[in-house]
Amino acid sequence: MRAKTPSESRTVMTDLVLPSETNPLNNLFGGELLARMDRAASISARRHSRRITVTASVNHVAFNRAVPLGSVVTVEASVSRAFKTSMEIFLDVWIEDRFTGERTKANEAIYTFVAVDDTGKPTEVPPLEPETDLEKERYAAALRRKQLSLVLAGKMKPGDATELKALFTS
Amino acid sequence: MRAKTPSESRTVMTDLVLPSETNPLNNLFGGELLARMDRAASISARRHSRRITVTASVNHVAFNRAVPLGSVVTVEASVSRAFKTSMEIFLDVWIEDRFTGERTKANEAIYTFVAVDDTGKPTEVPPLEPETDLEKERYAAALRRKQLSLVLAGKMKPGDATELKALFTS
Amino acid sequence: MRAKTPSESRTVMTDLVLPSETNPLNNLFGGELLARMDRAASISARRHSRRITVTASVNHVAFNRAVPLGSVVTVEASVSRAFKTSMEIFLDVWIEDRFTGERTKANEAIYTFVAVDDTGKPTEVPPLEPETDLEKERYAAALRRKQLSLVLAGKMKPGDATELKALFTS
Amino acid sequence: MRAKTPSESRTVMTDLVLPSETNPLNNLFGGELLARMDRAASISARRHSRRITVTASVNHVAFNRAVPLGSVVTVEASVSRAFKTSMEIFLDVWIEDRFTGERTKANEAIYTFVAVDDTGKPTEVPPLEPETDLEKERYAAALRRKQLSLVLAGKMKPGDATELKALFTS
Amino acid sequence: MRAKTPSESRTVMTDLVLPSETNPLNNLFGGELLARMDRAASISARRHSRRITVTASVNHVAFNRAVPLGSVVTVEASVSRAFKTSMEIFLDVWIEDRFTGERTKANEAIYTFVAVDDTGKPTEVPPLEPETDLEKERYAAALRRKQLSLVLAGKMKPGDATELKALFTS
Amino acid sequence: MRAKTPSESRTVMTDLVLPSETNPLNNLFGGELLARMDRAASISARRHSRRITVTASVNHVAFNRAVPLGSVVTVEASVSRAFKTSMEIFLDVWIEDRFTGERTKANEAIYTFVAVDDTGKPTEVPPLEPETDLEKERYAAALRRKQLSLVLAGKMKPGDATELKALFTS
Repeated sequence: MRAKTPSESRTVMTDLVLPSETNPLNNLFGGELLARMDRAASISARRHSRRITVTASVNHVAFNRAVPLGSVVTVEASVSRAFKTSMEIFLDVWIEDRFTGERTKANEAIYTFVAVDDTGKPTEVPPLEPETDLEKERYAAALRRKQLSLVLAGKMKPGDATELKALFTS
Repeated sequence: MRAKTPSESRTVMTDLVLPSETNPLNNLFGGELLARMDRAASISARRHSRRITVTASVNHVAFNRAVPLGSVVTVEASVSRAFKTSMEIFLDVWIEDRFTGERTKANEAIYTFVAVDDTGKPTEVPPLEPETDLEKERYAAALRRKQLSLVLAGKMKPGDATELKALFTS
Repeated sequence: MRAKTPSESRTVMTDLVLPSETNPLNNLFGGELLARMDRAASISARRHSRRITVTASVNHVAFNRAVPLGSVVTVEASVSRAFKTSMEIFLDVWIEDRFTGERTKANEAIYTFVAVDDTGKPTEVPPLEPETDLEKERYAAALRRKQLSLVLAGKMKPGDATELKALFTS
Repeated sequence: MRAKTPSESRTVMTDLVLPSETNPLNNLFGGELLARMDRAASISARRHSRRITVTASVNHVAFNRAVPLGSVVTVEASVSRAFKTSMEIFLDVWIEDRFTGERTKANEAIYTFVAVDDTGKPTEVPPLEPETDLEKERYAAALRRKQLSLVLAGKMKPGDATELKALFTS
Repeated sequence: MRAKTPSESRTVMTDLVLPSETNPLNNLFGGELLARMDRAASISARRHSRRITVTASVNHVAFNRAVPLGSVVTVEASVSRAFKTSMEIFLDVWIEDRFTGERTKANEAIYTFVAVDDTGKPTEVPPLEPETDLEKERYAAALRRKQLSLVLAGKMKPGDATELKALFTS
Repeated sequence: MRAKTPSESRTVMTDLVLPSETNPLNNLFGGELLARMDRAASISARRHSRRITVTASVNHVAFNRAVPLGSVVTVEASVSRAFKTSMEIFLDVWIEDRFTGERTKANEAIYTFVAVDDTGKPTEVPPLEPETDLEKERYAAALRRKQLSLVLAGKMKPGDATELKALFTS
């Protein structure tokens, strides 16, 4: 399969924060943002694989900034690394000041999707070829994250996670 | 503040998978489950702290089993460890076979919430006192997860994360 | 069929009152609570019968207390009596004070569900065996309610409703 | 206050059954119909009282016919009797055959609403003056239903419910 | 096919403006009103044709008055002219003052629907026979609007649009 | 006020077609697409004006292609012309084939928004400076559309609509 670049799967989802999505402080519920990011990531995964894709896992997501009612929120997703049947998708979330138009980074998140056929069986996806410096950096880090996942799930021995081991023992 | 037990914050949210929440394979969207878990975790965090609580982060969540349309899904959440102003909430997700009634574990997830006052400023929460073996095990692991978070966010040096270091160097 | 106890069908649905569910006084719409109770009752009916179940009727429901935006609402449902193909489900609704954690009874409701096969035809359900005093009391009252229903629907002569007659003539 | 007729509060709510409102048999969820009827009844109560109105109770509702996905459903509500601060609203629900256009009665329901001021305190409503035979019949039956409610709630002694007593002892 | 009158397709959809449908000024989102009108128009088109109907176009819709949260909104739709397989539906939108009950016209809109068979292929519809003066006026104007549509879409030469030409050259 | 270009207000809203948004043919309801386009257009209008913006009108929208359940739909909106307090927004809607990734134009639409202050009073907006050929063409056509609007609303005499008159009399 021909390798694809991150820009081929880039997905931009701009939308308002609606009143039905807010918590008692009038900010976007964390759970609603997780759901929006899941939809954006699934589109990105589909654009890379041209398959049905299902959420496999969500990596650590930090909610650094509250997103107030009425904000314009932009979720940008692209595939950051492809493995055999799974893809890591990196998401950046921006909010925009109504009056100045200034964009502020609100969140980053990392989701993993698996491509499946019509029966739900995992199926192969094209490799990813990062182009920009940021894409290359995210591509490299994706391997460490995969090892960490496997270690935490008990599917890899910590001693075999060479990338991670280096981090803690250097 | 008086310490509280995990059972004081236990929250049970049983509900159906509705047609509006399903993907093209007729299974619950990952994003919808993330949103339900966020609501359950926020109730649990509020029961522990008796404060307004906001999502601070979502740890690694693995979607091991598809949850089909029409399933009964039970999300169970309790606080697994309390820090100064934040709480780790551990969630177990179960699905139930319509005909046999057999319950199967579908997912585990870990969310972190912060207690805030009416202006959104973090405010102190009671300590947690685990009782059962499972609660004690999750309590201990919560510290490792917190260190890992801090390391990944660049707020703690890997060398200072004593619990983690042991994991990779033993 | 083996008799089942009310605790085998007990269903707990805890959730927040969201902004999209409130009326101009910022309290939960009666209709939204009716819909939540219907979902909880249908899960309870399914747990008792292990069948598809459909709402047959809603008995008198009194809305005694307003449920404000942001409340934690717990709906608890269990089968209170089983007839040939139908089940009476008794629901208790609780709200929880955000700061003290005190639980207050907000409502009681009684729904009747029928178990059906895949074509929608009513199908037999197991008998119910009440255990606690409250369960026995609700079990006994269910028969009076069923007679009342039949009388009001013109399907039973008032004179044959022995349980009810006693109530008004004693 | 000037008396009003039922036709002054008549409310017609015609809408489709949407895919997000259906159960596993592809029929409208009972709970969704209860919510729609609550909105229609609240508009009717507001038209009679010109006040904010809140659901006080739902009388026995029987679901006689399934309402399939894609149906056109018409809910018609009017005030059937006014008491001091409360109003009984009678609802008729019709479904319409897509091809022949034939209307079939699907349900009847009776809701009670209370008129309140801005602080939620009950406030007086105009009397109702029924005009047609059906309106007069529903008006008369409303008193029996009110007595039954009070008896079941333990707020009236069965012996004082003269209208009801006659029903069971004649 | 027997001609039908506009009153045979008249559809009345009365509903509240819910909190989840409002913009930052606490008025109904234009987009939500467009969606409600689309559902009402589709019911009207179905009542005229007794077929599945799909939105073909929306003519110029002006939003003259804001519709505040909590308003009662009535959308009234009827077929204003039938062509071979398409129908023009004229909609009037009214809002009602909570306290005086006075109805004010908030909007007018014109949608066009096409009747289709189960495969989505356009299929013939009955002619329309207007009765009242207003219905006759809307019927006549519908032809000018259809010509305008065709001209704007480049499917009719301006010189052939005899009705329109008269308007600008007289 | 400094003139802005269309690209400064360009808004991209990519999202899935969810099961709750589809009609009996399993295609996106016209009304749902109108609501999505309204949100995208309102963001575009806000980006141009840096004000609260409200829908003033929707021009002729043609639904040329059905949008099936599960599609990826991209709505692209930019301001096409600014008047004193109003802005015309031009929208292009694309759908994407799941397997080939090919994008097809599904719809075009034109909305008009007005910028308002906190009290809802119209307020001035910056002029628009089109850059590309397509932007210039849409900019020119916007004036004809505005004249047509005014004529149809009876606010301009057909004889004064010089641009339009030319169209029909040349």
